[in-house]
Amino acid sequence: FQVNQFWIELGYFITLSSLGFLALKASKPRTARSFKPKYIDLFFTSVSASTVSSMSTVEMEVFSNTQLVFLTVLMFVGGEVFTSMLGLHLMRARIINRRTNNILNSEPNSQSLPQSDSNTDHIELRMITDHNFTEEKSNTKQEEEGNLKLKSIKILAYLVSCYLLVVHVTVSSLISIYLSLIPSAKRVLKTKGLKIETFSIFTTVSTFSNCGFIPTNENMVVLKKNSGLLLILIPQILMGNTLYPVCLRLSIWFMEKFTKRSEFRYMLKNSRKLGYGHLLSGKHCFYLANTALGFIVLQLAIFCVLHWNADAIGGLNAYQKLVGSLFQVVNSRHAGESVVDLSSISPAILVLFVVMMYLPPYTSYLPISEEDDIGPHKKEKNTIKKRNIWELLLFSQLTYLVIFVILICITERNHMKRDPLNFSVLNVVIEVISAYGNVGFSSGYSCKRQIHPDSQCKDAWYGFVGKWSDVGKFLLIVVMFFGRLKKFSTRGGKFWSLA
Amino acid sequence: FQVNQFWIELGYFITLSSLGFLALKASKPRTARSFKPKYIDLFFTSVSASTVSSMSTVEMEVFSNTQLVFLTVLMFVGGEVFTSMLGLHLMRARIINRRTNNILNSEPNSQSLPQSDSNTDHIELRMITDHNFTEEKSNTKQEEEGNLKLKSIKILAYLVSCYLLVVHVTVSSLISIYLSLIPSAKRVLKTKGLKIETFSIFTTVSTFSNCGFIPTNENMVVLKKNSGLLLILIPQILMGNTLYPVCLRLSIWFMEKFTKRSEFRYMLKNSRKLGYGHLLSGKHCFYLANTALGFIVLQLAIFCVLHWNADAIGGLNAYQKLVGSLFQVVNSRHAGESVVDLSSISPAILVLFVVMMYLPPYTSYLPISEEDDIGPHKKEKNTIKKRNIWELLLFSQLTYLVIFVILICITERNHMKRDPLNFSVLNVVIEVISAYGNVGFSSGYSCKRQIHPDSQCKDAWYGFVGKWSDVGKFLLIVVMFFGRLKKFSTRGGKFWSLA
Ligand SMILES: [K+]
Ligand SMILES: [K+]
Repeated sequence: FQVNQFWIELGYFITLSSLGFLALKASKPRTARSFKPKYIDLFFTSVSASTVSSMSTVEMEVFSNTQLVFLTVLMFVGGEVFTSMLGLHLMRARIINRRTNNILNSEPNSQSLPQSDSNTDHIELRMITDHNFTEEKSNTKQEEEGNLKLKSIKILAYLVSCYLLVVHVTVSSLISIYLSLIPSAKRVLKTKGLKIETFSIFTTVSTFSNCGFIPTNENMVVLKKNSGLLLILIPQILMGNTLYPVCLRLSIWFMEKFTKRSEFRYMLKNSRKLGYGHLLSGKHCFYLANTALGFIVLQLAIFCVLHWNADAIGGLNAYQKLVGSLFQVVNSRHAGESVVDLSSISPAILVLFVVMMYLPPYTSYLPISEEDDIGPHKKEKNTIKKRNIWELLLFSQLTYLVIFVILICITERNHMKRDPLNFSVLNVVIEVISAYGNVGFSSGYSCKRQIHPDSQCKDAWYGFVGKWSDVGKFLLIVVMFFGRLKKFSTRGGKFWSLA
Repeated sequence: FQVNQFWIELGYFITLSSLGFLALKASKPRTARSFKPKYIDLFFTSVSASTVSSMSTVEMEVFSNTQLVFLTVLMFVGGEVFTSMLGLHLMRARIINRRTNNILNSEPNSQSLPQSDSNTDHIELRMITDHNFTEEKSNTKQEEEGNLKLKSIKILAYLVSCYLLVVHVTVSSLISIYLSLIPSAKRVLKTKGLKIETFSIFTTVSTFSNCGFIPTNENMVVLKKNSGLLLILIPQILMGNTLYPVCLRLSIWFMEKFTKRSEFRYMLKNSRKLGYGHLLSGKHCFYLANTALGFIVLQLAIFCVLHWNADAIGGLNAYQKLVGSLFQVVNSRHAGESVVDLSSISPAILVLFVVMMYLPPYTSYLPISEEDDIGPHKKEKNTIKKRNIWELLLFSQLTYLVIFVILICITERNHMKRDPLNFSVLNVVIEVISAYGNVGFSSGYSCKRQIHPDSQCKDAWYGFVGKWSDVGKFLLIVVMFFGRLKKFSTRGGKFWSLA
């Protein structure tokens, strides 16, 4: 079932990316006369949008309004909350299907049961009869619970849809209002020839799905003084990613208080039984929220200490600096929008960002015992015995990332020799981990950093990966898919002993 | 007990390092007139020798013959095989001590047992009586086994001493013979003013303990054409580190065939019960050997493909290249001797070396089930329930390493800004992981790589850390201790869920 699920999701994202690629190819870019992106770059952008990574090999202002709309759709249907909602519907369909089959097969089943047991001795037979008896007694109870579960899944799917709808409508209205009220922000869009509606909806979808594309070349750098806008986006980033389970549980709790329906009570009490990975127990939510906020505070403290007087956030007043820094550190998990040029940030922070980008959204310090609700761990223990050829061969995720880094060091080896400051291993690692974490941070490429200056070189506003060879770009596409589906490979490397 | 053991070993290494420091301080360096190392550099060297790391902040030819002898002693008593032998003697003393106490306390013990059980009901009492009965019957058997175990530990300790002695005597004689027979090697030592005996013994001890210091400034680079010498050292590196358990088991097997003593049979059958961490089961040895050889082949293949025609191993014929490459890749786990300048190696290989340096010696692909002999895992499961405040707070080893890298990026931030090619994050990571793995590889520092050339700059033959600030050096000293005692921190980070 796990493997099956993996292929379904992989197929979904590949289909999405291919459709996105075709749509981008069919429509004309804004710069149709002067510059046309290569096919690999269009595919890269499509993959980047549908896996919500926001890695880029093309400047964003190349894309026309139509193409931005296509990207918005890709980001929306590629986002984790949306796909998880699809998963809920799928799960419900499956359960209903299984039930119909069970009812159809129930008579032959009950006949075959005694037959297969006919060679057991008396004591065992008695135990089975006893067991059957209690089973019959609890059968109606079980059926009741089954119905409740099915209803709960249905209602949960609707609740998630409402959550999506409410957040998107609210935030895009807020952004629209902000943009029409604040002249400085309005002016930016005007000079770039962007429509307010397109910008609001694109930004809202991109931020909630934690994709991180912004229709401007400079991402949020050009709007870094608009602290109000940043403050609208920060909670939305958290609501769509690291704190989604907390918000979801709060919504359910609120609905339970409001409607008193038993389905909501069932959801709160049996958070794991429903099989919806984003519905966590209360305790787990508590630790998750603390961990996420702890990481933000830690990053903010180090970032402010090392950069308060640095050029990276120059030209801002204290309030703007604080909001900008907060925005930047919130974005390292995992939206990837940016108000500073990452290449001007000190290496200490970059290493910290690499760690934050690597950590999956629901990383949490979880000192609760096994009897408490930590479903996945239990599952792991049960399945440890039935070994699967895949499990034996799988490495840990970190190993795969190192392999990708080594491969890219090999494909870009000539660049690395000639241009060691731009093509440093740290920058490659940032790019790979950023793609794996579906973040979108990039050190970029700067002609100033070339050791042997090249007169042809022109600075551009796309990511570092834009300067790589096609094979390197292709490898990063693979890393983005791998990162988007990382939940399926958490069990790799189990048979390696590092003792 | 675990914690206790940790403090004992930490105390041992700190005492060793301090004594080494005092000895180095009291004796005169060879370059006493022109250059005297700073105190922190002497302490650094002493720690580096006693933790068998071979990180350096001073050129080796600074040290006089007397100081080289001190370093030899430090490396010998700091090596893992020697300390594990001490551990065996300590364990034996403890068991004897506990037995004596048991015999003294045996009467009060047997009286207190029934008293504490007096409140149990009849059925339980009967079971306990039964249990006692079988216990009495098997008591003599147990005692017999205890005696056998005690004898086995004693014999094992002697066997390890013999192993040490035989390897050291054989290899240092081989090196002496090689040096006196081959004129090119002899000439090198003569020009450097090194005695053949000092060089042979120093190199043997350093290689077997996997320390990696060589009395020459250039480490083995200056002897890279002496393939014979490299071929003598390669098996010794493996015998003292990654393949030590395999060699130990083979020796025991050989002794069992030869003497037919029951203690050897006991050792072979109860490898885990003895409590000697380096005595592994046959299957485990098999997988360990395969993994270690697999890593060597993998590294060798990539190294040769990327460097066959490169400058790094220039000026050698095909045979010398092959032996040199093999020597280099064997040294990444964890001896750290070197026939090439690491800064001239391609980044892909450097990243691979970082992984190899990180992996502990007994890393192995181990697809054997839990019922088979993999002691540490079992232990972990049993102790998972008794939580310890330390365990709750401990991070994983990788997290600590990242913290150290970030701290060093902060202490060296001015260097990193001014001199980004030498002070790259990759070079810092190599230095930290090399210290943690007790390897001793270093990218070094090169005046040629400075972006803003400094006329005062002089190239030197010590490691990159030699150019760091004193705080940075101190941090690396901490990393070396942490790395030497890494076996005590394998259980950290257990309460972090990355799901
Ligand atoms: K993103
Ligand atoms: K070493």
